[in-house]
Amino acid sequence: MTRTTVRRVPEKSRPDRHALNAVLDASLVAHVGIVDDGQPYVLPMACARDGDRLLLHGSTGSRLMRALADGAACCATVTLLDGLVYARSAFESSMNYRSAMVFGQARPVPDPLDALRLLTEHLLPGRWETLRAPTRKELAATSVLELPLQEWSVKVGDGPPEDDPADLTAPVWAGVLPLALQAGEPVDAPDLQVAAPAAPVVAPAIVALADKAADWGHM
Amino acid sequence: MTRTTVRRVPEKSRPDRHALNAVLDASLVAHVGIVDDGQPYVLPMACARDGDRLLLHGSTGSRLMRALADGAACCATVTLLDGLVYARSAFESSMNYRSAMVFGQARPVPDPLDALRLLTEHLLPGRWETLRAPTRKELAATSVLELPLQEWSVKVGDGPPEDDPADLTAPVWAGVLPLALQAGEPVDAPDLQVAAPAAPVVAPAIVALADKAADWGHM
Repeated sequence: MTRTTVRRVPEKSRPDRHALNAVLDASLVAHVGIVDDGQPYVLPMACARDGDRLLLHGSTGSRLMRALADGAACCATVTLLDGLVYARSAFESSMNYRSAMVFGQARPVPDPLDALRLLTEHLLPGRWETLRAPTRKELAATSVLELPLQEWSVKVGDGPPEDDPADLTAPVWAGVLPLALQAGEPVDAPDLQVAAPAAPVVAPAIVALADKAADWGHM
Repeated sequence: MTRTTVRRVPEKSRPDRHALNAVLDASLVAHVGIVDDGQPYVLPMACARDGDRLLLHGSTGSRLMRALADGAACCATVTLLDGLVYARSAFESSMNYRSAMVFGQARPVPDPLDALRLLTEHLLPGRWETLRAPTRKELAATSVLELPLQEWSVKVGDGPPEDDPADLTAPVWAGVLPLALQAGEPVDAPDLQVAAPAAPVVAPAIVALADKAADWGHM
């Protein structure tokens, strides 16, 4: 049994690569675990999938980031919270989610400008082409790593509560409250100096968020 | 204090401990890192703070969960994504977030029933008292761990983009698109057998989600 086998709840395991891509493409943040002197650390990092690699972005200079860039064994986990599951018992109550774990060794990307563009486009779709090009100094101060998608697992919890038949007549509502990351009203920068409306700028991100929400019945 | 300052301080520091509490209380899922044979693993687990401990809930029986319950060094990280930051350069573009890391050793809770109630109340507020009590068998099959809040750090990125003064006249909108986990329309269980409306059941969770969203200007 390998470390990417989902051991406990095999029916929640999705072995196909399409499921991995779907979960990663819906995620903006990965929680990246590395070990330093026996102590695990879990760092939140911006992420974006590009083909067979997961791009990870963090601040340069920290000891843990250097260890990560130097190829320390890591585990990048993404989790999307899709719903609160109201079962008829506390025991069966749970959350619906999509989660992926990727194991391996990260390394600095060979193409920092392209990787920064891909990350920016994933997080702020449509924004890149409206901005000036990064300076050489900025690129040097940006650390983008890539983690190959070679060893991974995907777990999905979805659907309605699965109650014990004896509980079905309990006098309570049962079902799912769907959850999704959603956008509020854009807030202008206080030093905004140009007459530029926010709506067309943030619209692609709002569309992308809707795409990232769980597609009930099509996972 | 800039938005990238790590508030890594002794636990006595009350204001910062308030920040830790606020971040943990707003989180439903922790990403828990442990090491097995040199390999880090990052597991998503339901979480709820109770006083000076973080309750963590996972399925019993897996090797990693047993290692965690046996006191393996761990790191529980929670991250709330609060906004997309549209700066005038890709370099300054970022995300607003609240994140906390808690280091230590977890152990099985001494009070499983109370811990299960606290977790259920955190995830599905108001639900516990409407459900039957867990059976002894269910309690035995439920693994709730507690991680003491002794060593931790909190990181918050908030506020508007911080652009290079030379970029301020770039002909683009700049600002923040706030993000928050929000609820959709409740979905009845297909086997719902009682005439029970969803709205009053899910209302407390919807209120709690609003409380968990970033309070602009009051962080």
